[in-house]
Amino acid sequence: MNKIKIGIAGYGNLGKGVEMAIRQNPDMELVGVFTRRNPETVKIATEGAKAYTMDDAKNMTDAIDVMIICGGSATDLPKQTPELAKYFNVIDSFDTHAKIPEHFAAVDAVCKESGHIGLISLGWDPGLFSLNRIYAESILPNGKTYTFWGKGVSQGHSDAIRRIPGVKRGIQYTVPVQEAMDQVREGKMPELTTRQKHVRECYVVAEEGADLNLIETSIKTMKNYFAEYDTTVTFITEEEFDAVHNKMPHGGFVMRSGLTGADESTHQMIEYSLNLGSNPEFTSSVLVAYARALIRMKERGFVGCHTAFDVPPAYLSPLSAEELRAQLL
Amino acid sequence: MNKIKIGIAGYGNLGKGVEMAIRQNPDMELVGVFTRRNPETVKIATEGAKAYTMDDAKNMTDAIDVMIICGGSATDLPKQTPELAKYFNVIDSFDTHAKIPEHFAAVDAVCKESGHIGLISLGWDPGLFSLNRIYAESILPNGKTYTFWGKGVSQGHSDAIRRIPGVKRGIQYTVPVQEAMDQVREGKMPELTTRQKHVRECYVVAEEGADLNLIETSIKTMKNYFAEYDTTVTFITEEEFDAVHNKMPHGGFVMRSGLTGADESTHQMIEYSLNLGSNPEFTSSVLVAYARALIRMKERGFVGCHTAFDVPPAYLSPLSAEELRAQLL
Repeated sequence: MNKIKIGIAGYGNLGKGVEMAIRQNPDMELVGVFTRRNPETVKIATEGAKAYTMDDAKNMTDAIDVMIICGGSATDLPKQTPELAKYFNVIDSFDTHAKIPEHFAAVDAVCKESGHIGLISLGWDPGLFSLNRIYAESILPNGKTYTFWGKGVSQGHSDAIRRIPGVKRGIQYTVPVQEAMDQVREGKMPELTTRQKHVRECYVVAEEGADLNLIETSIKTMKNYFAEYDTTVTFITEEEFDAVHNKMPHGGFVMRSGLTGADESTHQMIEYSLNLGSNPEFTSSVLVAYARALIRMKERGFVGCHTAFDVPPAYLSPLSAEELRAQLL
Repeated sequence: MNKIKIGIAGYGNLGKGVEMAIRQNPDMELVGVFTRRNPETVKIATEGAKAYTMDDAKNMTDAIDVMIICGGSATDLPKQTPELAKYFNVIDSFDTHAKIPEHFAAVDAVCKESGHIGLISLGWDPGLFSLNRIYAESILPNGKTYTFWGKGVSQGHSDAIRRIPGVKRGIQYTVPVQEAMDQVREGKMPELTTRQKHVRECYVVAEEGADLNLIETSIKTMKNYFAEYDTTVTFITEEEFDAVHNKMPHGGFVMRSGLTGADESTHQMIEYSLNLGSNPEFTSSVLVAYARALIRMKERGFVGCHTAFDVPPAYLSPLSAEELRAQLL
């Protein structure tokens, strides 16, 4: 069997997660990592794989079947994905919801020109959560969909805490409100405000002599980040911070509460949830499964940009159609 | 817009559910119901739709885009689906897991001959649960999948109770064991026996003067139905039976517990669950959403038999690709 040859563009938490996920899939192999750092300073865990500069990539089009792009959504992916789609089939985890149509159009135009396939906005939200929204809303048209996130670390909110003077270390967990989820599960279809759905828990290591009250107030009143939520701030020691808050857990819930029947009075509830020990490792695992799907799409003549909505579920699996019907249906 | 014209073959609980689900989808209309009963005795709830004999169907090929076949898996569907696939695009909910490959082959052969599309084994298990198995196992290759059913009514087990002498009314609920589900959620990946996963709760109305001990023993020792489970038998009055046990709730859980990371020690948990007020009404809603998908497949030239694994999620939705990317991704 020809293994699927994968390149990784960007070797941070997500890129390293992709590398580890490739090892769990015997039909894939990592060819190389493409980095903006000096490649000689980058140590690749996988034997046989090498580090290259981003510029090297365009000379390696024959060596790579799929390029998985592991940059950030704010500035990296809007440039990198269309650029690399000139040379490769590409996959990314672009997650700025409001800008997806724009990103899709940019990648689609390049792919149609170059004859490649792009798969964008993969991961769990957007990604698996999106899939659950589309299945659930198509099946229960009379209903209401709810998404809750957490308990998990928000990088953006953690960064915001760390920018406050006097804060040495800081991390923020988004936590869904149990009572709100229970109301949804009971079929009450509540209208929930931002404040009713999630609370924000902050853990902070302060600089010596810093004004703790001022830090706490600065966090709790920060517009667009914390002011709209019930926020707690807990000051801890650096030792505790390092021991307890060194992971990147996340997760969440997509719920569809719907009504069926002659008088639309029968309550039906669909719920999907993730409880992730590591957000980047899980996102990576999704990206890698879709690399297999991309190859199946290529074999069938697909070209252009696509999302998880366009991919038949069977394409993700290493099993044949016959095996799938016999074992998983 | 041309509405999708649907026929229903079989007008029991499932067929009536399909009729009600069609009303929730403005892009569809019910043309007629095909029944083995005398059509003049069958009252159709939908204005404009008529009842016909099964034999009438073959003369109505131009009037119907999709025939949704609502018979039972034991004897109806293995005959009806291949037979009707000669004349129509067909959808069924065939759920005898072990016989799916055989049923697939039979429907596929007819569809390829007649140029139609068949979509079989749709509903929630097989169906939505199968989809969650394939997504979760593809994304977390190192892991273990668990399916729990319930709390819900098992028709087969309820029928078995009712065959016991002295039983006037009887119903059986399959109930998942909370402790077993908790172990799975904690990432312990337990090996669970049949007895450890589910209990069976039976509610019985006895005939006057019947030997209650004998009934209870007959139930609890019945091989392949109850002997392998912890089973409870509760005798109730006919009034209570009619008041409390007149619904067909069901549901269940698909859980994938997986490991990722450099030393495969990070626990990742995917969970999908359904809490259904009415099993037949929900199954019907799935069948109707896939009728839309079938039309999309037809427009793209698909022929032959397919399952949920082969259908791109976008095909189920009434929304356009652009709307889906902007609203649900």
